[in-house]
Amino acid sequence: MMKLGIIGVGRIGKVHITSISTRVKDAVIKTAADPYMSEETAAWAKSMGVERTSKDYMDVISDPEIDAVLICSSTDTHSPISLKAIQAGKHVFCEKPIDHDVSRIREVMAALEGTGLKYQVGFNRRFDHNFEAVQRAVASGKIGTPQIIKITSRDPEPPGIDYVKVSGGMFLDMTIHDFDMVRFLAGCDATEVYVQAANLVDPAIGEAGDVDTAVITLQMENGAIAVIDNSRKAVYGYDQRAEVFGSKGMVSVSNDSASSAVISSEDGVTAEKPLHFFLERYMDAYGKEIAAFVDAIVSGRETPLNVEDGLQPVLMGLAAQKSLKEHRPVRISEIG
Amino acid sequence: MMKLGIIGVGRIGKVHITSISTRVKDAVIKTAADPYMSEETAAWAKSMGVERTSKDYMDVISDPEIDAVLICSSTDTHSPISLKAIQAGKHVFCEKPIDHDVSRIREVMAALEGTGLKYQVGFNRRFDHNFEAVQRAVASGKIGTPQIIKITSRDPEPPGIDYVKVSGGMFLDMTIHDFDMVRFLAGCDATEVYVQAANLVDPAIGEAGDVDTAVITLQMENGAIAVIDNSRKAVYGYDQRAEVFGSKGMVSVSNDSASSAVISSEDGVTAEKPLHFFLERYMDAYGKEIAAFVDAIVSGRETPLNVEDGLQPVLMGLAAQKSLKEHRPVRISEIG
Amino acid sequence: MMKLGIIGVGRIGKVHITSISTRVKDAVIKTAADPYMSEETAAWAKSMGVERTSKDYMDVISDPEIDAVLICSSTDTHSPISLKAIQAGKHVFCEKPIDHDVSRIREVMAALEGTGLKYQVGFNRRFDHNFEAVQRAVASGKIGTPQIIKITSRDPEPPGIDYVKVSGGMFLDMTIHDFDMVRFLAGCDATEVYVQAANLVDPAIGEAGDVDTAVITLQMENGAIAVIDNSRKAVYGYDQRAEVFGSKGMVSVSNDSASSAVISSEDGVTAEKPLHFFLERYMDAYGKEIAAFVDAIVSGRETPLNVEDGLQPVLMGLAAQKSLKEHRPVRISEIG
Amino acid sequence: MMKLGIIGVGRIGKVHITSISTRVKDAVIKTAADPYMSEETAAWAKSMGVERTSKDYMDVISDPEIDAVLICSSTDTHSPISLKAIQAGKHVFCEKPIDHDVSRIREVMAALEGTGLKYQVGFNRRFDHNFEAVQRAVASGKIGTPQIIKITSRDPEPPGIDYVKVSGGMFLDMTIHDFDMVRFLAGCDATEVYVQAANLVDPAIGEAGDVDTAVITLQMENGAIAVIDNSRKAVYGYDQRAEVFGSKGMVSVSNDSASSAVISSEDGVTAEKPLHFFLERYMDAYGKEIAAFVDAIVSGRETPLNVEDGLQPVLMGLAAQKSLKEHRPVRISEIG
Repeated sequence: MMKLGIIGVGRIGKVHITSISTRVKDAVIKTAADPYMSEETAAWAKSMGVERTSKDYMDVISDPEIDAVLICSSTDTHSPISLKAIQAGKHVFCEKPIDHDVSRIREVMAALEGTGLKYQVGFNRRFDHNFEAVQRAVASGKIGTPQIIKITSRDPEPPGIDYVKVSGGMFLDMTIHDFDMVRFLAGCDATEVYVQAANLVDPAIGEAGDVDTAVITLQMENGAIAVIDNSRKAVYGYDQRAEVFGSKGMVSVSNDSASSAVISSEDGVTAEKPLHFFLERYMDAYGKEIAAFVDAIVSGRETPLNVEDGLQPVLMGLAAQKSLKEHRPVRISEIG
Repeated sequence: MMKLGIIGVGRIGKVHITSISTRVKDAVIKTAADPYMSEETAAWAKSMGVERTSKDYMDVISDPEIDAVLICSSTDTHSPISLKAIQAGKHVFCEKPIDHDVSRIREVMAALEGTGLKYQVGFNRRFDHNFEAVQRAVASGKIGTPQIIKITSRDPEPPGIDYVKVSGGMFLDMTIHDFDMVRFLAGCDATEVYVQAANLVDPAIGEAGDVDTAVITLQMENGAIAVIDNSRKAVYGYDQRAEVFGSKGMVSVSNDSASSAVISSEDGVTAEKPLHFFLERYMDAYGKEIAAFVDAIVSGRETPLNVEDGLQPVLMGLAAQKSLKEHRPVRISEIG
Repeated sequence: MMKLGIIGVGRIGKVHITSISTRVKDAVIKTAADPYMSEETAAWAKSMGVERTSKDYMDVISDPEIDAVLICSSTDTHSPISLKAIQAGKHVFCEKPIDHDVSRIREVMAALEGTGLKYQVGFNRRFDHNFEAVQRAVASGKIGTPQIIKITSRDPEPPGIDYVKVSGGMFLDMTIHDFDMVRFLAGCDATEVYVQAANLVDPAIGEAGDVDTAVITLQMENGAIAVIDNSRKAVYGYDQRAEVFGSKGMVSVSNDSASSAVISSEDGVTAEKPLHFFLERYMDAYGKEIAAFVDAIVSGRETPLNVEDGLQPVLMGLAAQKSLKEHRPVRISEIG
Repeated sequence: MMKLGIIGVGRIGKVHITSISTRVKDAVIKTAADPYMSEETAAWAKSMGVERTSKDYMDVISDPEIDAVLICSSTDTHSPISLKAIQAGKHVFCEKPIDHDVSRIREVMAALEGTGLKYQVGFNRRFDHNFEAVQRAVASGKIGTPQIIKITSRDPEPPGIDYVKVSGGMFLDMTIHDFDMVRFLAGCDATEVYVQAANLVDPAIGEAGDVDTAVITLQMENGAIAVIDNSRKAVYGYDQRAEVFGSKGMVSVSNDSASSAVISSEDGVTAEKPLHFFLERYMDAYGKEIAAFVDAIVSGRETPLNVEDGLQPVLMGLAAQKSLKEHRPVRISEIG
C-alpha cells in the first residue's frame, strides 16, 4: 500500500480524494493538508478514508511515511511546493499547469534531474475512455498518417469573474487541456499557433481582459494541422469531442451521457444531454491517472505525463496569448 | 417506351402516377381509368403526363397499345380485373392484396398458367433502400443463419372507421406488408402464426370488430423465429424498422427522417422524427417497383413478386385472424 | 458502517465483493463463506477488504455482529439459507431465483411475516442506468399508456453444458431477468405467456433438454403486450436493449460500449461492439443494488425488490416452460 | 412550361440535364450546346428529353423561344457567356465561380442593372436537405446568436493533376462551396480569413502549386468565428458536415449514406460509408436549385443566390490565397 499525501483540498483535491478512495487500489491517503481546512472538510476527508488532516502542508512534505505528494493547491504554489517535495525525496503528482512562468517549470525540471523521482502532471483527459480510444486508433496506424486533428472543448458555464481574473486567461486555464490533448493525439509537439477569439458569452469576461470563445489553429511537427474550438458556455452541457482524420480514415468520439435513453414523441426524437460537468465525465479518468502514477512509482517506469508534458502546453498557451494580442500566427519557438 | 394503363386513381393510383412520371424511365401512362374520375383528378393526371383519362376501365383493358395494367382499384376488384386483364393479354401489376379469398387468388394463378404474361404484386417495401440492405446482408450470408427476425411496423395514425370496417382487418390491410417482409428477409415461408393483439388506440376500432395493436410470432420454414409488432398509431410518425439476428451477427435498419439535423439545447439532444407517412418514406420504392415490373416484361425474367408472393401473405393474414379468434398458434397449412 | 456477510464466493459472490469494496459506502463485508473456499480466493477476498473467510456459512448466520446476509450460493440452497438467515434475524439479499419451487418461495414469504426484516432479490438490471431511464420515462407518463414493451436479451455465449443441465432451463436461468424487467417497465404483473422457442445455437443444448433461442409474448395486466427475444449466443457481445411504446411516444435504450469511438475507413463506419459480458455492463448496477439494500435497512423503507418480486418471475418462467411444452398460451394463474 | 438552354455538357451539365428531366416540373431543356458534343452525348441528351443539341452555344443564346440559360461550361467562359446571355435578354443560371477575376464579376453585375433579368449562381449545397435544416435552425433563432460555425468538407478523391493546374487552386475550386455555406449559415459576410494549409495527400498537387489539406478560420461580420476543414481525399467517402454553435444551443448535421443498415458482428458495429460523391449526395439539391431558379423567374422574386452571392465567395477565396502566401490573417476588404 502506497501512502499518499495531498496538498490542497479545494474542488480538485476533493476529486482526487474521492477517486482514490473508490477507484484506486494499492494506495491510501495518509494526510490531506490545506491552510483553509474547515472542520466539515476534515470530517468529510476522514469519512473517505483519509487518515489525518492538517492546515500545514509541511505535515505532508516532511512525513517520512509518505511516498508521494499530490499538489492540488492554487496554481501559483504548484512550482514552489513541487520543489520542496522533490527536495524531501517525494514523488510528485502536480495539477496543471505547473506554472505560468516557463523558467519556473524549468527549475522543477532541473531539480528532478538525477533524483530518480517520478513527476506527473494532471492532464486527466488522457485517461478518459473516449480520448484513449482515439489515441489508440491513431497510434496503431488505423487511420494512417494524421492530417487534420479537431478538438471541441466547451464548458457548460463560465467560472466566476473573480476566478477569471486570476486564472491566467482562458488559454492557460481551459485550453491548456486541449493543447495537451492535441499533443497526445498527434504524438508530437506543435510548432505554431494562430488564435481567432472573441468575447461573446459574457461582457464581464471581456472587461476582465479575457476571451470566452476561440478557434485555435496549430501546426504540428508531423505535418498535421490541428484546430481547437472553445466556448466557456455550452447550454447543453460539457461538450468534449475529438476527431482525427488521416490518410487511411478518421476516428471520432462523441460525448457521454447518463443513459442511452431516447424518447420519440410528437416533439422529435430526443436523447439525453452530455454529462454536465467534468466531475461526472472524468471521474473514472481521475482514478486512472492516479493509478498510473502509483504504477509508475512501483514499476520504476516513466510517468505517462512528465514535466516536459507539463511545459509544452504552457508554451502553447503563451503562444496563443501572443497570437491573440498581435493578431498573427506565433511560433512556439518565439516563447521562452 | 412501354405504355401502361392504370385502373383506379385513388391515393395509391396517384402515388404510381407520380412516381412513374418522375422516377421511371422507359414507361409512360397512356390511360388512367376510374369510375369516380373527377375533372380535377383528370387535369392533375394530364399535368403528370398521362395521355388520357376515362371512367371506364375497359378503355384500358381493351386498348391494344397498352402493354401492361396497374390495378389500383378497391381490393374486391383486384382479382376480377386481374382475370380480365390476363384474358386481354396484358401484363399485370396488382396492388396488395390480390384478394381476401384464397380460391380467387388461385384462379388468377390458373389464368396465368402458360400465358407467359408477367404478374407482380405491390409489396413496395421490398424496394426500400433500407429493407433492401437488410435482405442483401442476410442473403449474402453476412449474418450467418438467420435465427430471429424482428419487424416494427407502426402507422402514424389509424385510418378512418369507415375504412376500418371494409379493410378486411388490420392483418390483411396493414400487417400483410410485414408478412411479406418476413418472407423477403427470411428467404422462406412461414409455417405457423401466433397473435397477441388488443384494441388500445381507439375504442371505435374495437367496436368495428378490429384490433389496433399486435405482437405476432411466426415460425419460419428455415427454423428462424420472426416477430412483428404493429400499432395503428405512433405519435412520432411512421415507424418502419427491421432487424435480423443470426449465427454470425445482426443487421438492423432504423427510420428515415427529412434531415440528419440534431439540435442540442437545454432541453436535450433532439433529432428529427421519422418521415411521417408512407408517401414520403416509400416514394423511391414505388418508382423502383414499377421499374422492376417494366424490366421483367422487357427482359422476360420473372417479376420479383409473383402471384405466389401475393398468396402467401394472405394465408398468413388469415392464419393470424384465426389465431386471434381461437387464441392459439395456427399452422399456415390449416388455411385454404 | 453496516456489517455484511456473504455466502457463496463463486462468480456472482466475487462480483458483489468487488462492487461493495469499490462502489458501496456505509457497508463492509465482515465474513465471506464458501464450502469450497480456496486459499487463493480467501487471499483475494482479504485484499478486497473482507475481514475474514470461512468454509462454514453458519459463521455468517450465527455472527451477531453481522446485520445482513448476501446469499450467492447455488440456486438450490437459496431458499433453505434464506430461511435460516431469517430465523437468525438477519436481513437477506438473495440472488435470483429464490427457488424453482413456488411453494418454497412462499415459505420464505411466510417466514418473513411480522419480522420487520428486509429481503431483496438480486435482479440487478433494475439498477442499470439505461433500464432505469426507461422505467423513469414510463413511470413519469412521458410516453403515455404503455402498449408494447420489447426486450432484447442475448448472451455473448452459452454457458457450459454441465451448467445448462442444472440451470433449470433458459427461462428460469436467463429469461428470468427479462421477466423481471417486463414487470419493472410495465409497472404491473403478466397474466399470460406464449413461447416460440428453438434450439439453434448448439445441438448439445437441445440434447440437454433445453432451448437456446426464444421469442416470448406476454399479456400484461394493464393491457400492454410485451415481447422478449432471447439468444444464448450473440457473436457481437452482450445485447441488452429495451423499448416501451405508448400512446404518447416511445422510449428506447441501446447497448453500452467501451467508448464512443467510431472509425470511418474504406471498409465502413465502425463503432465498438457492446460491452462483452454482464460484469462489464452491470458492475455499477451491482453496486447500486447493494447500496439500495443497505439503504432500505437503514431507512426502514421497503426494499426495491421484495419476495413477491422474486416470486413473479419464477411463475412467469414456469408458465413459459409449460407454454413451450404444450405449445399454447399459458395463463400465470395456471401455475402454483 | 419554361424552355431552358444549357451551355456545356460536361459532368456538371449532365447533372443538370438529369435532374431537370427527373426532378424539375415546369421546365424543359430545348437545346444543349457544347463545342465538343459527341454523338454519344447528343443521343444521351435526347433520351433525357432534350429537344435538340448543338456545337454552337449561340444556338442557345439567340433562340427567342429559350427563356433562360444554364452556363455549365469551363470557368473561364462563365462571365463572357453570362454577358452575352444578358445582352440577349435571357435569365441566367451560372455554375460557380462566375469568374476568378473580381472585376469581371462586377461587369456581370453592371450588365444586369435595370434589366429585370434573374441571375443565379450554382451553389447547390444550399438546397441540400441537411444544410437547409441547419440554416433553418439558425435563422429561426433556435440556437440563439451564432458563435462558432464549423464546416467539414472533404472530397473522396482529388481531381486529376491536369485539372488541378487550371482549377484556380483548391480555395476557388473546392473551398468556394464552403465559403458560400459559411455565409448561408451565418447569415452575413466574412470580414477576415486565415489559412493553415499543407500538401499532404499527393506530392503532385504540391508540385502543381496547390495545397490539398487546409484549416481555414473566418471572422464573420456578426461576431461569429467560422472554421472550415478541407481535404482532397477522404478514403471513406464524401464528407460533408456542418455545425453551428450559439448562445442557446447547437445544430449539427452528419453525412448521408445509402441506407441506415448497421451490421453487428465479431468485428464491430458497422454502418455504411457516406455517399461517395457529389452526384449521389446532391442530386436532389441540383433539382431543387433549378426549381428555385425557375420559380424566381415565374414569380418575379429575387433568386436565392444572386451575383453578390457569387462575388463574395470569390473574394473569400482570393483572401485565402493571399493568407496562405503571406502567412497572416487577411481582411476581405484588402481584396478587389
